Amino acid sequence: MAELSRRRLLGTGAVAVGGAALGWGAGAALTGREAQAAMPVVPFHGEHQAGIATTPQAHTTFVALDLKPEVDRSTLVRLMKVWTADAARLTQGRGALADTEPDLATSPARLTVTVGFGPGVFRAVGLEDRRPTWCKPLPPFVIDRLEQRWNDGDLLLQVGSDDPVTIAHALRVLLKGARETATVRWTQRGFRRARGTEPEGTTMRNLMGQVDGTVNPRAGTEDFGQLVWNDGAAQPWLAGGTSVVIRRTHLDLDAWDELDRPGRETVMGRRLSDGAPLTGNAEHDEPDFGATGPGGLTVISEFSHIARARSADPRQRFHRRAYNYDEAPAGADVSDSGLIFVAYQADVDAQFLPVQQRLAELDMFNRWSTPIGSAVFAIPPGCREGEYLGQSLLGA
Amino acid sequence: MAELSRRRLLGTGAVAVGGAALGWGAGAALTGREAQAAMPVVPFHGEHQAGIATTPQAHTTFVALDLKPEVDRSTLVRLMKVWTADAARLTQGRGALADTEPDLATSPARLTVTVGFGPGVFRAVGLEDRRPTWCKPLPPFVIDRLEQRWNDGDLLLQVGSDDPVTIAHALRVLLKGARETATVRWTQRGFRRARGTEPEGTTMRNLMGQVDGTVNPRAGTEDFGQLVWNDGAAQPWLAGGTSVVIRRTHLDLDAWDELDRPGRETVMGRRLSDGAPLTGNAEHDEPDFGATGPGGLTVISEFSHIARARSADPRQRFHRRAYNYDEAPAGADVSDSGLIFVAYQADVDAQFLPVQQRLAELDMFNRWSTPIGSAVFAIPPGCREGEYLGQSLLGA
Ligand code: HEM
Ligand code: HEM
Repeated sequence: MAELSRRRLLGTGAVAVGGAALGWGAGAALTGREAQAAMPVVPFHGEHQAGIATTPQAHTTFVALDLKPEVDRSTLVRLMKVWTADAARLTQGRGALADTEPDLATSPARLTVTVGFGPGVFRAVGLEDRRPTWCKPLPPFVIDRLEQRWNDGDLLLQVGSDDPVTIAHALRVLLKGARETATVRWTQRGFRRARGTEPEGTTMRNLMGQVDGTVNPRAGTEDFGQLVWNDGAAQPWLAGGTSVVIRRTHLDLDAWDELDRPGRETVMGRRLSDGAPLTGNAEHDEPDFGATGPGGLTVISEFSHIARARSADPRQRFHRRAYNYDEAPAGADVSDSGLIFVAYQADVDAQFLPVQQRLAELDMFNRWSTPIGSAVFAIPPGCREGEYLGQSLLGA
Repeated sequence: MAELSRRRLLGTGAVAVGGAALGWGAGAALTGREAQAAMPVVPFHGEHQAGIATTPQAHTTFVALDLKPEVDRSTLVRLMKVWTADAARLTQGRGALADTEPDLATSPARLTVTVGFGPGVFRAVGLEDRRPTWCKPLPPFVIDRLEQRWNDGDLLLQVGSDDPVTIAHALRVLLKGARETATVRWTQRGFRRARGTEPEGTTMRNLMGQVDGTVNPRAGTEDFGQLVWNDGAAQPWLAGGTSVVIRRTHLDLDAWDELDRPGRETVMGRRLSDGAPLTGNAEHDEPDFGATGPGGLTVISEFSHIARARSADPRQRFHRRAYNYDEAPAGADVSDSGLIFVAYQADVDAQFLPVQQRLAELDMFNRWSTPIGSAVFAIPPGCREGEYLGQSLLGA
């Protein structure tokens, strides 16, 4: 620990960190203003919206809204201008324009605000022909036990930050701005480990204890760009945008806890301790799906989650950015836990759908995981200063 | 920022921190095991239970349980032994004894587990004569709009950590251990700013933007000890223990937002920007309740929250350790926010009650704050290795 030097501390340059890394407790010797200047900030303006390639924050709240019946293009443009202006300020640690609690805005802690459009938006503004064909509810799957209260929505607000107070404040500002235009349909609050709890870059664990998110395109690579950012070929307004699928999935921890460790590892195809494939030694080792064990069976079962989730077609991939949820238990239960499964891809039908279909058909893990909510949104591209989110759709 | 030296970083000795402070991102250069060793840990064993004098963690979940009808002294002793063993391990970063997800236990992030006894415990174990006289529901106040779903309870579990995953895991372990003995009555999840967002020792802000917690006895001082820790004069088993009052208080942010800043500052008697009293310049300046302004009125209104909350009797004080709550809004609302008001004192009737009575009678702030839940628990003293929590009550 004596080796925790300043050079080491400050040398870890994280993408999209506006200031130097700030140590736990180190701020004690800084004035409030200095500490604030050192706060990590994610740029708001850019080709793509923030909150997708951004290293996942500790907390993200997803809110779906329903447009009021009377909403038309001009009201929606007005809302997008307000949200854009508010998000541009809040993410940089400034109070929003009509902020009644600007004192809560000073610590963005990597705040990002990401806006999405559900199918209802295109209907409301009379632009059905600009709706991406995949922007609609997913087809039903036999594994689904969907509850209306977690499904669909016209608008999505995805608000992420390492700080829960920042999220509460930003959400309130944004939802106040939408009061005339839309009502909240559902709210899903997700969390991962607090920032600083684990070394930067550690793959998260979900509440089953699994290392979750290992096989994922790496932000900033060409692979990531091609999988995630839409090229605008089908819908020019969506160039630089993407889509998100949000599947609220209940995890049956009680039943899971009855399986022993080898059983759980077989179900997933990976080790619980470090997430290594059952044929490997370290988390990022390539799984060997052909390797066989003493009995002649493959070491990684062909019915395991990772065998079923992996496709021979390299296009059937996407960027997963899931969050845990843990709500107050009801009745005699001791927990109500699950995963807010979140996937971004250029094209839902070409990339996400075949994988979900394959998993719904057969995946040992289905016994313990049940989709209870499902929603799809188109995510417009980012905007430059002076522009507003959704302008390529609504402004042309 | 160049001055953020290692000496400074490591020199900030926080009470009850078992390892050196770990910087954001600094862990990138550490192995998992090293990072773990460096994780702040709060000792479990001691004269007093942890989680009271502990610098508030970013997250705390309060769970009240109801004992099953058949519970007697021996079943309760069994539960206390299980909870003690689990808490002793989990708080030190080790999996619990029957932990099915030990991989989630490695980052305690200042985890504390605090156990409390409601009035029902004394009935269930046939020890009514050992119930502190104040261990009962508070009397009704005219300001109350209590909802049964947030009131009372036989047992309290207060689980705090800087990491939300750690809380989810610890709670599940503890509630699994209680499955045969008790059912969950209510769950209240509270948060403050993430650790590292603000300099250590910064007073928290609540969701109204107020600096909340300025006037509070300082942990470790004689004053704190006398106000908080019970001396055992009335109930010898409670020596070294305390009591907690938990008042879930809804804050009407919509109405508050209609007040201008000077109006809000008058209501509280303190400045919003930095929490300084209206007669002072800095947060910790002594308020001058006698100072008058141009019109001859006192600068700090006698009906302000701080004027009404302060007593001439130095015994009418307690240790406040509140948390924000922010639940999913219902209907056309854009937020459902408030404060989990939490106060610890040696004697509820002598210290807390007169202040709450005075505030209920008259406090300008009542217009915007409404108690919707109320619970009182006796908090047994801490325990040594080999003992269990509650042993001085149940074991003698
Ligand atoms: C909601 C419950 C789910 C849980 C708890 C879960 C958990 C996991 C875990 C632990 C892994 C192995 C490590 C990793 O690469 O991340 C994994 C891999 C994967 N999962 Fe899931 N998963 C869930 C649902 C889904 C769904 C709904 C899909 C897509 C429809 C999906 C697609 C994938 C993919 C593509 C991989 C990587 C497979 C590979 O190529 O190795 N998962 N998941
Ligand atoms: C739940 C809603 C409440 C909120 C938002 C709130 C907020 C505040 C704020 C902002 C202050 C000034 C700064 C400080 O010293 O902390 C304060 C002071 C104080 N409050 Fe509250 N409060 C609430 C309820 C209560 C209740 C229920 C009590 C006790 C019955 C109480 C007792 C006190 C005391 C003793 C002080 C310090 C007064 C002094 O000596 O200066 N508060 N509160």
